[in-house]
Amino acid sequence: MHKVFLKRKIAPRIANGHPWIFANEVEKTEGDFEGGDTVEVFTHDKKFVGKGYINPKSQILVRLLTRQKNEEINAEFFLRRIRECWEYRQKIGYTENCRLVFGEADGLPQCIIDKFNDYLVIQTIALGIDKWKPAIVDALNTIFQPKGIYERNDVPVRELEGLTQQKGFLSAPFDPKIIINENGLKFHVDIENGQKTGYFLDQQDNRRAIRHIVKDADVLGAFTYTGTFEIHAAHYGAKSVLGLDISENAVAQANRNAALNGLENIVRFEAANAFDVLKQWGKDNRQYDVVMLDPPAFTKSRETIQKAITGYKEINLRGMKLIKPGGFLVTSSCTNLVNPELFLQIIDMAAKDARRKIRQVTFKAQSSDHPIIWGMDNTEYLKFLIVQVQ
Amino acid sequence: MHKVFLKRKIAPRIANGHPWIFANEVEKTEGDFEGGDTVEVFTHDKKFVGKGYINPKSQILVRLLTRQKNEEINAEFFLRRIRECWEYRQKIGYTENCRLVFGEADGLPQCIIDKFNDYLVIQTIALGIDKWKPAIVDALNTIFQPKGIYERNDVPVRELEGLTQQKGFLSAPFDPKIIINENGLKFHVDIENGQKTGYFLDQQDNRRAIRHIVKDADVLGAFTYTGTFEIHAAHYGAKSVLGLDISENAVAQANRNAALNGLENIVRFEAANAFDVLKQWGKDNRQYDVVMLDPPAFTKSRETIQKAITGYKEINLRGMKLIKPGGFLVTSSCTNLVNPELFLQIIDMAAKDARRKIRQVTFKAQSSDHPIIWGMDNTEYLKFLIVQVQ
Repeated sequence: MHKVFLKRKIAPRIANGHPWIFANEVEKTEGDFEGGDTVEVFTHDKKFVGKGYINPKSQILVRLLTRQKNEEINAEFFLRRIRECWEYRQKIGYTENCRLVFGEADGLPQCIIDKFNDYLVIQTIALGIDKWKPAIVDALNTIFQPKGIYERNDVPVRELEGLTQQKGFLSAPFDPKIIINENGLKFHVDIENGQKTGYFLDQQDNRRAIRHIVKDADVLGAFTYTGTFEIHAAHYGAKSVLGLDISENAVAQANRNAALNGLENIVRFEAANAFDVLKQWGKDNRQYDVVMLDPPAFTKSRETIQKAITGYKEINLRGMKLIKPGGFLVTSSCTNLVNPELFLQIIDMAAKDARRKIRQVTFKAQSSDHPIIWGMDNTEYLKFLIVQVQ
Repeated sequence: MHKVFLKRKIAPRIANGHPWIFANEVEKTEGDFEGGDTVEVFTHDKKFVGKGYINPKSQILVRLLTRQKNEEINAEFFLRRIRECWEYRQKIGYTENCRLVFGEADGLPQCIIDKFNDYLVIQTIALGIDKWKPAIVDALNTIFQPKGIYERNDVPVRELEGLTQQKGFLSAPFDPKIIINENGLKFHVDIENGQKTGYFLDQQDNRRAIRHIVKDADVLGAFTYTGTFEIHAAHYGAKSVLGLDISENAVAQANRNAALNGLENIVRFEAANAFDVLKQWGKDNRQYDVVMLDPPAFTKSRETIQKAITGYKEINLRGMKLIKPGGFLVTSSCTNLVNPELFLQIIDMAAKDARRKIRQVTFKAQSSDHPIIWGMDNTEYLKFLIVQVQ
């Protein structure tokens, strides 16, 4: 077995259970390993730390898969881990659709698997986990006998690992345009060409959280993507729902989703730049009972965090101005670069600038099939907030 | 109208909307007011700040009721405010039972009103709000035509305001032992002698959050009071539930609640000191699938906060040791002195000391009928956490 020895001074992160080991935290390596190989990690004085996969091309030299010395990394390991993942999701009440494997939070770094009823979508973003793809596919076939498995490795970050971007079937081919059920509604999911794995499961519980406040309400949604929040609003008794997204494709898909649920007379979608439109409608004194915002991350790096803050503040300020006194703002942020405290500060600033008083109705994270491990920043990323606006 | 002028340097708290004005923040007063009178508050240069009630006997000299110069403080005001409170609760989906008025968070400082189906329970904890009790009762009769209204002003903090502790009927007398419905279950509520207003409505949504994890589980609950979490667990399909509380009275009431729901064969309650018992059972290697802890505040003042930290850490550590690998800890804290971040830190420390790995399944506050206003510390008090324990 190849060996990696940490420097004398170990980062508290590693000691506290985080699976990442950066190249500059390593004293020396032993053995003639190749990228993706399994290595054993030790402290400088040869105490066992864990086993993981190595990639000299990555800043993160090793990602640990286990802290147990007697746990072998083999096909059995992946079968066992994925079984545990499925047991956890079943225990917390997810059956048809769920994030089955949530990377680091499930002890399978850089591995994402989403389950959409009988179909599974995989991402293996690091070299060391990508090498185990056949074992992972075998495990999925053993546990689920799925109708299909699809690979959505068309993500640029793979290139940092020396991997190519690719997507395609890992099972017999099937029609990648499927339909899923969520909260009593149906949604088209395009496994092949939809964003990420085709659908945002992380908001599936939060979509239920709007149930009461949208009743008999005029609702405006922005950054609607395929319209899931807006169609929920119509389903839960909104008087009217208008959804905006800048992408014509997303709007077309959202309108198809509305029709799929027979709600096309209540909810409609239009292609528009939300920043421009909300600003104009504020000047026009348009008013809604509920405004829902689910914007993109605005930034992907800590260096440009100010851009995200500015973007979130601006759009929330614009949204609040369109809300009738006593109405509700439903607002999300999906980047872990903006932590929960900062997100609330941004909303507070937006309210002050909009000269509106707000109070917190609900504040949540992503659904529980994406568990959070404290200290692993990338597992705590979604903020979902409802405030009443006076 | 009596007038209060603030010092030149105004606390950001007041500027940001907090209704409390401490005596040492006041430059001078004008007029021959009595404790409980309505006063107008101005900045040192005579800009209007708000109107509220004054009590020279209290460290908090004034509590503001409005920031609107043209809003009169009269019976109409209380009728209007309480109507708004009820509209908000209906909008967010509360019908039978709710905290109808949550003091500062509803613009009615030191006024608490809980609604238990056709009955209302009132607390008016400060002199200035106590004086308006007849107007508040009139408003409740107008809005609800309730079967009964009861005053639970048997709280020591009233004495700091120069008020006596008292309780009794504010309507025609009625049997104060009532039954309420929650999440498809029934619970005895003793409006006259139960803790606080007779029942803890703030956990009503959180009790639903255990639904999936308790299925087929052996469940242990501690600090159960009248057994609401434990009876929910039995209702949601637990194999067995044992609840512990130090009070024989609480245990008797909890067993009556179990019987009321026909669940007495699944859930039983025993009088015991949870600290002692959990420690002993840890030594005995007893194991449960789910452990639920809903301890009291352990402290009431910031000076003895360390006592609360020690108490929470100890009991959570003891609880975690009793959980089977892959099982769940359901744990709460009900004091605003321990903020959400500190609470998570305490649980993290407890896990490290118990040598158990945990991951966050759910983290919530009190139910939305107790809205949170950022910057008003006493509105953000309940933490409710579910972690999976490996």
